[in-house]
Amino acid sequence: MDIKTQVTEIAEDARRAGNRLATIPPDLKNRALLEMAQELRRQGAYLAEENARDLEYGREKGLSAAMIDRLTLDATTIEGIAQGLEEVAALPDPVGNVTSMWTRPNGLVIGRMRIPLGVIGIIYESRPNVTADAAALCLKSGNAVILRGGSEAIHSNRAIAGILQDVLKQVGIPEKAIQIIPMTDRRAVQEMLSLEEYIDLIIPRGGEELIRAVVQQSKIPVIKHYKGVCHVFVDADADMEMAVAISLNAKAQRPGVCNAMETLLVHHDIAGAFLPVMENTFREAGVRLKGCSETRAILPDIEPATEEDWHAEYLDLTLAVRVVNGIDEAIAHIEEYGSLHTESIVTRDYANAQRFLKEVNSSTVLVNASTRFSDGFQMGLGAEIGISTTKLHAFGPMGLEELTTTKFVIYGNGQVRS
Amino acid sequence: MDIKTQVTEIAEDARRAGNRLATIPPDLKNRALLEMAQELRRQGAYLAEENARDLEYGREKGLSAAMIDRLTLDATTIEGIAQGLEEVAALPDPVGNVTSMWTRPNGLVIGRMRIPLGVIGIIYESRPNVTADAAALCLKSGNAVILRGGSEAIHSNRAIAGILQDVLKQVGIPEKAIQIIPMTDRRAVQEMLSLEEYIDLIIPRGGEELIRAVVQQSKIPVIKHYKGVCHVFVDADADMEMAVAISLNAKAQRPGVCNAMETLLVHHDIAGAFLPVMENTFREAGVRLKGCSETRAILPDIEPATEEDWHAEYLDLTLAVRVVNGIDEAIAHIEEYGSLHTESIVTRDYANAQRFLKEVNSSTVLVNASTRFSDGFQMGLGAEIGISTTKLHAFGPMGLEELTTTKFVIYGNGQVRS
Repeated sequence: MDIKTQVTEIAEDARRAGNRLATIPPDLKNRALLEMAQELRRQGAYLAEENARDLEYGREKGLSAAMIDRLTLDATTIEGIAQGLEEVAALPDPVGNVTSMWTRPNGLVIGRMRIPLGVIGIIYESRPNVTADAAALCLKSGNAVILRGGSEAIHSNRAIAGILQDVLKQVGIPEKAIQIIPMTDRRAVQEMLSLEEYIDLIIPRGGEELIRAVVQQSKIPVIKHYKGVCHVFVDADADMEMAVAISLNAKAQRPGVCNAMETLLVHHDIAGAFLPVMENTFREAGVRLKGCSETRAILPDIEPATEEDWHAEYLDLTLAVRVVNGIDEAIAHIEEYGSLHTESIVTRDYANAQRFLKEVNSSTVLVNASTRFSDGFQMGLGAEIGISTTKLHAFGPMGLEELTTTKFVIYGNGQVRS
Repeated sequence: MDIKTQVTEIAEDARRAGNRLATIPPDLKNRALLEMAQELRRQGAYLAEENARDLEYGREKGLSAAMIDRLTLDATTIEGIAQGLEEVAALPDPVGNVTSMWTRPNGLVIGRMRIPLGVIGIIYESRPNVTADAAALCLKSGNAVILRGGSEAIHSNRAIAGILQDVLKQVGIPEKAIQIIPMTDRRAVQEMLSLEEYIDLIIPRGGEELIRAVVQQSKIPVIKHYKGVCHVFVDADADMEMAVAISLNAKAQRPGVCNAMETLLVHHDIAGAFLPVMENTFREAGVRLKGCSETRAILPDIEPATEEDWHAEYLDLTLAVRVVNGIDEAIAHIEEYGSLHTESIVTRDYANAQRFLKEVNSSTVLVNASTRFSDGFQMGLGAEIGISTTKLHAFGPMGLEELTTTKFVIYGNGQVRS
């Protein structure tokens, strides 16, 4: 069977399974999730064996230690995955909820009912835990899922998906609700991205290159963010201690993630007092600073920042610093260089706090808190399938509700239009 | 200046205007809308003059009487447009509303705030009233709009857009918030559909052919419905009188629209009693019936329906009728042949009513009411910019809220992540 036929069959099976899934009661989905967690624990030895094949191939291929680490499935990572499934089981089920209801003058009662999107395709890189995480969130929200992981993790992904499917069959849910693309050929992704009749949404998870390639090829809507160039703006009357703590946390608590700060904007009225204190703290934390000319007038030892630095997503302990003449310039800088991800203001000024929240266009905007809180778990969404920096359908961290849509349900008693 | 440059400039101007529009207070937007209504009334003679140029060209081109009718701007249509603008001004402003708010254990207060999508492109056929309607809904929801109407209406559209822009300038709103593509060259649409950096959403309004062409070419997300193949299912224990009234209304009250019924499904237990009564009523209303073999066993005079009829969107006084052996077969028929638009069940059975509402996948599902209520105004959304039959972002009739998205706003007092 050729790749096109194979992938199309997977997608047709997913559509059929998705149609059934929409009406499966919450209890049964939760039973499946809890049983999956247990079964993954029981099958630890088998999973480690299959994972070893990927690791061996990865070492031959010369993957970096960091990538090998992300690829590894051991007792600890498997326990983490299992607990993740149990947490998803414990979340409230979004499907069937009526989010609002109203009565029309003619007596029609109209409600909006949450329903699954249908079939979701997830395209991701080498972390095999995504296979279980994404499958669990899609199952819980009533969606069939087609998973396409990296070729480096193919044996691990096949093993995990096989276990999840066995549990589905066992509890009486269509097993095609969770499928992986079993071949590593890149043409399979191209085929998948052309099947807009069967797949409702594509979520790519990985680096900017992967995401751009998916967007380029896809005929199916893609929810994505390319990068996170997040800003903290220290306003003129910021609490100095708070400003240092928030800046440090936003930059250094975990620099390799998309909600870490990449550019610090400082009001010129506070720059003389703030920047030297900040520099000390940041130097201790090993942060390399690059600054605009006004910053370097105060901190002469740091490197100059160029135009490129304002666009940069360093993802490490490097920070660009710019002095601005007020909130207008700060907002204008964010509008020009930001990525619509996450921005924070540190201020004691009521009007500036309100203006920043209202006028900054990004998916998450904070006052007096670290950008690192822009995260589905931290924000109380219960889960996170991804972060969207495009405004359609979802904007910001996406939880279970963002994997659903609403239809209108109308209760009448014989109404006709005149 | 070539077309590409011209269209790109329009889109860049729209992006800039959109960024400003997001923070303009409701009062000012409403003042602009009310003033636009007045100005259109005042400029009736000028509008009629420009419209006459389109009508003359249309008659030369041999447009049908129906199309000439849709193209005509006279005192009545202009008054209708003006009142439409006043109604939009009276609607609640969605922008800035916080739709929910919650507190995290660490004291962060998190809310979802409604914000405009940004820039919306509307591509439509020859009705010039769409120019004002769509511009008003976009302005009210804080979005900049780029309008591309049919070449038959170009003088009318230019005249209307010019008046709206003059009012914007006069009240102090960036006039580029409402723009039309001033040239009729088709390449302008192609260019427009490639500008994903500046345009956030495309809404095509028109026939299936227009919509397919837009979807085919667009790099920007498109919200659309191709057609409405809507169903009414008359259940075994339906109230006969209600079933006839709802079926007749759904088919014949306005047959040329997307929420009119195209296929009637009848439970076989009621078919013998229901179909002859229905046939009488429908014959009086001038409806042509086509039936499955079981239907024709009861109504031998009607034409046979073929496989094609189950897919057909007649948009006139023709109806396909099929006898089914119960709700399962009715739902399966809708799943196979439906267009995810609107379906209704007529029943007195509680369980079947609930099952139909829950299991039918369409954007609007009714019990004991005509499919003709699937309409933004009828449903109380206050407006309708279009109907979506794809699930992402919006599903069903789209009002002002569907022209917005939400961002997360977070109020902290120094929180950092540990």
